[in-house]
Amino acid sequence: MSTLLLKNVILDGKTADVLVEGNRFKRIASEIAGEADRVIDAGGRKALIPPFYNTHTHAAMTLLRGYADDMELFTWLNDYIWPAEAKLTEEDVYCGTRLAILEMIRSGTVFFSDMYWHQRGAVRAAEEMGVRAAIGLLYLSGSDGEVLERNRRSNEELLASRGGNSGRIQITYAPHAIYTVSEPVLRRIAEEACANDLAIHIHASETSREVEECKAAHDGLTPIEYLDRLGILGRRTVLAHCTHLTDHDIELIRERRAVIAHMPCSNMKLCSGAFRFHDAFDLAGCRVTIGTDGASSNNNLSMLDEMKFAALLAKHESGLPTAARDADVFNLATRCGAEAYGIDAGVIAEGKLADAVLVKLDHPQMTGDYNLVANLVYSADSSVIDTVVCDGRVLMESGRIENETEILEQARACCRKLGRS
Amino acid sequence: MSTLLLKNVILDGKTADVLVEGNRFKRIASEIAGEADRVIDAGGRKALIPPFYNTHTHAAMTLLRGYADDMELFTWLNDYIWPAEAKLTEEDVYCGTRLAILEMIRSGTVFFSDMYWHQRGAVRAAEEMGVRAAIGLLYLSGSDGEVLERNRRSNEELLASRGGNSGRIQITYAPHAIYTVSEPVLRRIAEEACANDLAIHIHASETSREVEECKAAHDGLTPIEYLDRLGILGRRTVLAHCTHLTDHDIELIRERRAVIAHMPCSNMKLCSGAFRFHDAFDLAGCRVTIGTDGASSNNNLSMLDEMKFAALLAKHESGLPTAARDADVFNLATRCGAEAYGIDAGVIAEGKLADAVLVKLDHPQMTGDYNLVANLVYSADSSVIDTVVCDGRVLMESGRIENETEILEQARACCRKLGRS
Repeated sequence: MSTLLLKNVILDGKTADVLVEGNRFKRIASEIAGEADRVIDAGGRKALIPPFYNTHTHAAMTLLRGYADDMELFTWLNDYIWPAEAKLTEEDVYCGTRLAILEMIRSGTVFFSDMYWHQRGAVRAAEEMGVRAAIGLLYLSGSDGEVLERNRRSNEELLASRGGNSGRIQITYAPHAIYTVSEPVLRRIAEEACANDLAIHIHASETSREVEECKAAHDGLTPIEYLDRLGILGRRTVLAHCTHLTDHDIELIRERRAVIAHMPCSNMKLCSGAFRFHDAFDLAGCRVTIGTDGASSNNNLSMLDEMKFAALLAKHESGLPTAARDADVFNLATRCGAEAYGIDAGVIAEGKLADAVLVKLDHPQMTGDYNLVANLVYSADSSVIDTVVCDGRVLMESGRIENETEILEQARACCRKLGRS
Repeated sequence: MSTLLLKNVILDGKTADVLVEGNRFKRIASEIAGEADRVIDAGGRKALIPPFYNTHTHAAMTLLRGYADDMELFTWLNDYIWPAEAKLTEEDVYCGTRLAILEMIRSGTVFFSDMYWHQRGAVRAAEEMGVRAAIGLLYLSGSDGEVLERNRRSNEELLASRGGNSGRIQITYAPHAIYTVSEPVLRRIAEEACANDLAIHIHASETSREVEECKAAHDGLTPIEYLDRLGILGRRTVLAHCTHLTDHDIELIRERRAVIAHMPCSNMKLCSGAFRFHDAFDLAGCRVTIGTDGASSNNNLSMLDEMKFAALLAKHESGLPTAARDADVFNLATRCGAEAYGIDAGVIAEGKLADAVLVKLDHPQMTGDYNLVANLVYSADSSVIDTVVCDGRVLMESGRIENETEILEQARACCRKLGRS
């Protein structure tokens, strides 16, 4: 097995050496002697932290970053996003996902949970670039209630690919939402996901319209109550947005140990509503994670940005500066995100999968230097990210990533094709 | 006069050359032949944009970044910030302001309006590092209503320094707030500022307590109405925060053409309240600008961060995704900020003061590349900032700034002295 030695890193405030063997942390000590296939010396001026796990995005939508902004949701979707998406090929999704992964690595993220079309393009991009991903089997129902032929075909292709050979990519069930997927299909997904032990990833309780229509159609049940009745609400289910939760919804999510993916930027930009962070996390103790949503509604994939928005919005909405503390929010963006998708990572500890980030400490955003985590949550942007390791492999060293120019050029070529006329 | 030629920049979507002579833009054309003392070639892959003008901060509080977070306002002030500030010397303020300016340049800001102690330290830092600044004569009243001796002395020193010799630094009147400065002192400031044609910079309508106490003490007047009665509310007055405005306050601010400094991050973090962006700017057309506040309550000085927060919070609060449009918010952070302090800059145009930023376009955050301004407001962080010019002088070229290591080391030494025991 290949070895990687991270020397003189700052870990929990002390200088340490960290040995990676294969794809796991083998040993952590104040000094580790001996050889390794590759050595990275942090010189005592870079902190080693867990990387970020982005629990909800549509990665290839980087191709639509800045394509249409400052619009009502349905104008934005009907007149801009959907017509542009209709033009996307698998090759475009590959290019857009590579662009997304480039941005993720630069901002310290090594995992994303994706819900999008032409999934083989996303698998190929994630396999090549060395990150982890959860790629969704996308479900949308047609007027007959059955899964759209387009989805059925690309889901079959995704299953046939088995998510590549690296072991870094998992397949999830990703029914789009309760208002776009029929009840029989949702029930079937609940059963299949349980039988195959795969995660479910769904938009839930995102708009007031969704809530009203659900209540009208399903005996007054909220979307969360409805999902529970269908058997969808379990430990392996990730609920994206949750901006319209009742007290009973929070109680149900807590009891079922379902996971919330919180996307403050996208929710604020599209005026979806406010996730009740303080009630659901600080008080009820629900499992919460952080996602960026797609780059056309955020408009970036930075988990550093998203942590700051999550913390500040929770304080602002609750009126409590003590809500959403820095260490908690950091934990949600790292360990909790990994845990939500069953990834044995998100902490720097012997035996864990070797995912890690080196952060520059000789950086204005990291000075004063009283509290590393406060600086990461409230002050840092992607310019502090120095080196990124995923599954024991170095994806970026001192800001250098392979093929960056080519990835950007290909993505721009795709944009020219989608270009607004 | 020295000349600087910026070649092959992207300006308003086209490739252009820009000639700077002395401290002003001399000529902008598709191609400019001939020599210049210094040439920077952007190779057609960097956009030239106006830099940011930060209209309210306490720069040296970078030394207290991450010193205390997630606390109730008065615990934070009484138990942490004020005791630490009591230890600060002029040398500390010099070091902390240098750190702040380093961070500002890295994130594309060339001007800050400062309200802090030991102002000569801030003047020295801004003079040395080449940025513009408005340094406030700080006023706090003692129990007798008169200006604190400590303020009187440092204000005299600031006046004697005339803000240095560069012409980049202006002096302002900076009474802290209506609840810390007595009515006679505020009236005197109104008269003096008018006579000397200097700007006034004051915290205003920041907390509900300030509003309630003002109404109780001053015939039911709101802080804005009270300031108007004292003659403080005019074209050269910058009101920091304004998180508790009534409709009548908005009308008054609009009529008097006073300037609002909006600090969404700090307001959200400290739960101060929400500035009514959509009402005051989109609807009433008040003069609005953007500030970062100090790094102990934000916790960074990035105007890029602040623009995103301003836009997203305005949408979220108003429920309108069409509120706070990208181009408007960018304008507030650039041209309007310069204008508020009477600086003939903030746009790239012949005859204007030569303040400018080169932005990397070969960058994942800037791809898709449909809309430069949307990318700057919603996607970019400081990693896109390549080169910064202020008053015709290059402060950063391709990410390199003079003395960065020494500035960081000195700042860390100050932090050790302030260190929480």
